[in-house]
Amino acid sequence: MDEMNMNVAGKNIVYVGGFGDIAVETCKLLLQKGVANLMILNKTWKESAFNELKSNDTKSVCQFMEFDITCGLENTRKVFAQIMDKFGYIDILINGAGICDERDYDLIIAINLTGTINTTLAVYDLMDKSKGGKGGIVMNISSVSALTPFPVLPVYSATKGGVLSFTRALAHLEPKTGITLYTICPGITDTKHWDNAFYFQGKGLCLRERAKSFPSQTAAVCAANILKAMEMHKNGATWMCDLGQMKMVEIKNFWTPPEKSCCSSTDSSKEQS
Amino acid sequence: MDEMNMNVAGKNIVYVGGFGDIAVETCKLLLQKGVANLMILNKTWKESAFNELKSNDTKSVCQFMEFDITCGLENTRKVFAQIMDKFGYIDILINGAGICDERDYDLIIAINLTGTINTTLAVYDLMDKSKGGKGGIVMNISSVSALTPFPVLPVYSATKGGVLSFTRALAHLEPKTGITLYTICPGITDTKHWDNAFYFQGKGLCLRERAKSFPSQTAAVCAANILKAMEMHKNGATWMCDLGQMKMVEIKNFWTPPEKSCCSSTDSSKEQS
Repeated sequence: MDEMNMNVAGKNIVYVGGFGDIAVETCKLLLQKGVANLMILNKTWKESAFNELKSNDTKSVCQFMEFDITCGLENTRKVFAQIMDKFGYIDILINGAGICDERDYDLIIAINLTGTINTTLAVYDLMDKSKGGKGGIVMNISSVSALTPFPVLPVYSATKGGVLSFTRALAHLEPKTGITLYTICPGITDTKHWDNAFYFQGKGLCLRERAKSFPSQTAAVCAANILKAMEMHKNGATWMCDLGQMKMVEIKNFWTPPEKSCCSSTDSSKEQS
Repeated sequence: MDEMNMNVAGKNIVYVGGFGDIAVETCKLLLQKGVANLMILNKTWKESAFNELKSNDTKSVCQFMEFDITCGLENTRKVFAQIMDKFGYIDILINGAGICDERDYDLIIAINLTGTINTTLAVYDLMDKSKGGKGGIVMNISSVSALTPFPVLPVYSATKGGVLSFTRALAHLEPKTGITLYTICPGITDTKHWDNAFYFQGKGLCLRERAKSFPSQTAAVCAANILKAMEMHKNGATWMCDLGQMKMVEIKNFWTPPEKSCCSSTDSSKEQS
């Protein structure tokens, strides 16, 4: 696999939260690029979204499985084991499930952070080269709120910041595991995601209405940049996809681990040295 | 209150996770500085730690309440309402509860992230000037892993990164709420915290043993810098307390919210403009 130009053609891909607006646009592009298998996991079935995808389906096989991302790690492992059986292998996991509803703090953490961690860990053990896997790719879709926390969405920002830290941490283990991880941070995008947005302390947000008064991007434009980021295939990278632009963000590591620290990967650093 | 030199004397303080090693050292300093009331919340009672504190207790009243930080937001609110009754008011909340055990992902998220969010929200509503409170201070103790994620502790890093994003988000609302929030990121500190540390994917860590082979700081030295950070009283700040040094970290906001955006606090920006 060319490190700077990964080709999605022929790949088996799982998209968690695959019926969101950005997801559907991204999946369309993946199908057009000729992925082998695309498995949409979503809590609910959406006929119109699935039909929209199927109309793009050429050689690729596009399937759907009902999946509640709050089902816990062990149940998540079972779902991914089933997909492994179907596909033979999972090459790429895309984590796109998320809510923006601060009325229920436990739920937003369970979906956006714990859920993303669980699906990542489930494929991680299947992909891990040091455990007999063939490596793979995990793309986690966070938010620009992971870079610049939103005052009116502090718990949402916490979950998205958590996803970013998690992804950056695991990316360091790539030399050992063969698993490439990176993060996408979309800016304000005109999607139904925001129709169900609720502010910190419960106020309704009507973000989508408000978003019309300031610059945003369409889901299709964002998806095109997400696909570009996938093709760049840069381990540990953080991509900001905002206002039709795509930019790699260099997050400063303010703290430097000491040599042989608890905090560096001894396994991978051995391999690297 | 002098913005750059907050004095803890006479304050009512709640320390969550108050029997940890850094906590005990910080509490000693707080008692020496003459706080009015110090309430230690901890899951378990630790006689030796409490006695160590009481021996420093001059005018201050130091008390303990059993508190399981995973008890949920509503129960957390009840505990803080009780403390309000006892103290009359809570001036300062210090969030210092945390585990470093990646054998149970749900638990580490529940304690380090959800728990910290819940205690913050519980005092938030009591302190909020726009709801009849008198303002206050929330100091959240994160970790340098929020700045430089630890490869061997990805979920721990996620929770600590989440706490940092959460704190930075809420700090923006200070003009409206009168609540000052900041984050402490301790570096490697020689504490019992690490005796119960378990790596990603379950391996025992023996971090404390390993920590002896590279530079670390004592809990007392870290606590002295935490107290200095409190006295600096800088809203939204991120303080790295590592190797005996204390440094304010300027985290870059890579994304700039548009004017009148969903992501800025309209209330506070009105007050500021």
